[in-house]
Amino acid sequence: KPSYKLLVLPGDGIGPEIMHEVSRVITWLENNRNVSFDLTYDLVGGASLAEYGVPIRDEVIEKAWASDAVLFGSVGDPKWGHVGFDKRPEVAILKLRQELGLFANLRPAKVFDALIDASTLKPDVVRGLDIMIVRETVGGIYFGEPRGIETLEDGSKRGINTEVYTTSEIERVARVAFDLARKRSNRVCSVEKCNVMESGLLWKEVVTDVHAREFPDVTLSHMLADNCAMQLVRNPRQFDVLVTGNLFGDLLSDLASMLTGSLGMLPSATLGAVQDNGKRPALYEPIHGSAPDIAGQGIANPIAQVLSFAMLLRYSLNMLDDADLIEQAVSNVLASGLRTADIMSEGMARVGTSVMGDAIVREL
Amino acid sequence: KPSYKLLVLPGDGIGPEIMHEVSRVITWLENNRNVSFDLTYDLVGGASLAEYGVPIRDEVIEKAWASDAVLFGSVGDPKWGHVGFDKRPEVAILKLRQELGLFANLRPAKVFDALIDASTLKPDVVRGLDIMIVRETVGGIYFGEPRGIETLEDGSKRGINTEVYTTSEIERVARVAFDLARKRSNRVCSVEKCNVMESGLLWKEVVTDVHAREFPDVTLSHMLADNCAMQLVRNPRQFDVLVTGNLFGDLLSDLASMLTGSLGMLPSATLGAVQDNGKRPALYEPIHGSAPDIAGQGIANPIAQVLSFAMLLRYSLNMLDDADLIEQAVSNVLASGLRTADIMSEGMARVGTSVMGDAIVREL
Ligand SMILES: CC(C)[C@H](C(=O)O)[C@@H](O)C(=O)O
Ligand SMILES: CC(C)[C@H](C(=O)O)[C@@H](O)C(=O)O
Repeated sequence: KPSYKLLVLPGDGIGPEIMHEVSRVITWLENNRNVSFDLTYDLVGGASLAEYGVPIRDEVIEKAWASDAVLFGSVGDPKWGHVGFDKRPEVAILKLRQELGLFANLRPAKVFDALIDASTLKPDVVRGLDIMIVRETVGGIYFGEPRGIETLEDGSKRGINTEVYTTSEIERVARVAFDLARKRSNRVCSVEKCNVMESGLLWKEVVTDVHAREFPDVTLSHMLADNCAMQLVRNPRQFDVLVTGNLFGDLLSDLASMLTGSLGMLPSATLGAVQDNGKRPALYEPIHGSAPDIAGQGIANPIAQVLSFAMLLRYSLNMLDDADLIEQAVSNVLASGLRTADIMSEGMARVGTSVMGDAIVREL
Repeated sequence: KPSYKLLVLPGDGIGPEIMHEVSRVITWLENNRNVSFDLTYDLVGGASLAEYGVPIRDEVIEKAWASDAVLFGSVGDPKWGHVGFDKRPEVAILKLRQELGLFANLRPAKVFDALIDASTLKPDVVRGLDIMIVRETVGGIYFGEPRGIETLEDGSKRGINTEVYTTSEIERVARVAFDLARKRSNRVCSVEKCNVMESGLLWKEVVTDVHAREFPDVTLSHMLADNCAMQLVRNPRQFDVLVTGNLFGDLLSDLASMLTGSLGMLPSATLGAVQDNGKRPALYEPIHGSAPDIAGQGIANPIAQVLSFAMLLRYSLNMLDDADLIEQAVSNVLASGLRTADIMSEGMARVGTSVMGDAIVREL
């Protein structure tokens, strides 16, 4: 029977407790399906800083390369607010993205019918919302050089970052977006600020070329990032797949997630390039953060982490049926009225992390 | 009696028709108040391209310096989509900001009670919303060098932009934000991406310093830009004054405007530094764009342009009573049930641009 190697990085805050519920889903699969998983756990973020003095060790990157996929929790802890720029917990995820070449972050923003009232938007505006944001994650202003803070002669300072995009960086992420669109509603909207930034102008040109050459059957539109921020609020259902750079993607995907009203439900995948051995590095994580304020209380919602694992089955292991099964189990549990605190509403049954985990495993 | 010089730049699309309604408000003031205005009109954007082959002439910049304030309409026209980066209509507003040193863009996002249903957000979330976004507008990635698109040896390309902020650029815009907060609810939230960008790290440090030294009485908080995009959707009323850089401000202020559901209602001011002669360059414009799709049809909403003029009276001419008067007239007209198409709702009376203008002048 097939066996897969997974690197599991629970990270900080609520990461470990919600990851625990995933481990139960994994055990269920091993007991009931013809598959086994070889799990390696390691530390990242604040947890790694505490143990090793760095947010992520090179060894962890190597383990990631040796795995079929990485399942990530979340990093970030106010305790480490003063460690300096190179050591902050966020370096863990940034380094994983960069070293593994995880260039395409797929972030679905989907409204669950059972949770529609959790949105701050009117139900008529978000009912059935199903957007996929494809965000470039190893380029742009996140990694461009020169960067840093320099002190000027008069003692004042200058902070600098550089946004860089090359043709090939734009092409490969555009292809991911067009490919996805073909499996969805066949529409891609590319987002930049080409009226102000030359990097955005190149972005638009390259996406237009890739479209004309390779994906003429997909409908392509272009939108300025400021307008996109507006349109996501005004009429989010106009979108199918959005593709954009690292920084705009950071803001717009968080904005889109919040339209659903239930961050605790949303998974994400970040994919790299297919390697010579046929493997494709990939990392799966909830879109929510480490939520240090509720960590350790057993009240965090494990669903986004469980759905991240379902995405892993779908995109990295091609176990489509099992991915569907888990997603269906989550839907059924919600339909049965169970809610963690973050998605609680009147008349529902409020439960903690492990009871929610129980219920999902029982549904399976 | 005092006389003020105003440079009026209607621009493209609906700019000229809504500016016409302002000219009637100006006439009313001249006839009923002890004040006169010396108006100079000129072309910018697509209108200037058509006449002079450039989006703005140096002469217009000089006229702006010679005026007490600039009243701007909007620029942008799909007709000029292919003129090349240097000639695009947007250069008009970017050049005015840069040449006049208009570094602080003040964008109120305010919900009008009469229009609360126009928002896509639930009334309970946005009722009474009143945020002021202070956006830096002459620095950051909009103007940083190096910038451009270069062709690499293999024929592929690289697009580059540079985000730069210096201590003094951050200080002066922070001061504007803190000053405004003192006249409002005394809270400032500073927004950057200090977990990824050194320019954001410097931003946070400098804002913190200015606060400690000069405005310890104001409550200061910090927020990451991605989280801010979320929080504006989740609970926008948590904010009073937001202060942020050029690019984040572009997205976040558009997002905040859309929360109100009525872009056609929102004015903005962009202020420069006080000069040796005591004058302070300033430009006032609606936050909406040139709306080429409805231009020339007489259906555009003139209110944002009229309220931009009220802001001009308030900030540049210190005519506070008259500013109040105009704002009150607009409120009354809305309360009486008149609506242009963009803010139309059931049971109201739908009117065009000039009837709305009539009604405002009559109210005065
Ligand atoms: C943790 C942080 C560095 C990261 C980012 O900005 O990319 C996060 O906000 C995200 O969106 O994954
Ligand atoms: C027209 C454009 C260059 C401008 C900007 O990006 O600053 C506009 O979007 C704005 O917000 O005033």
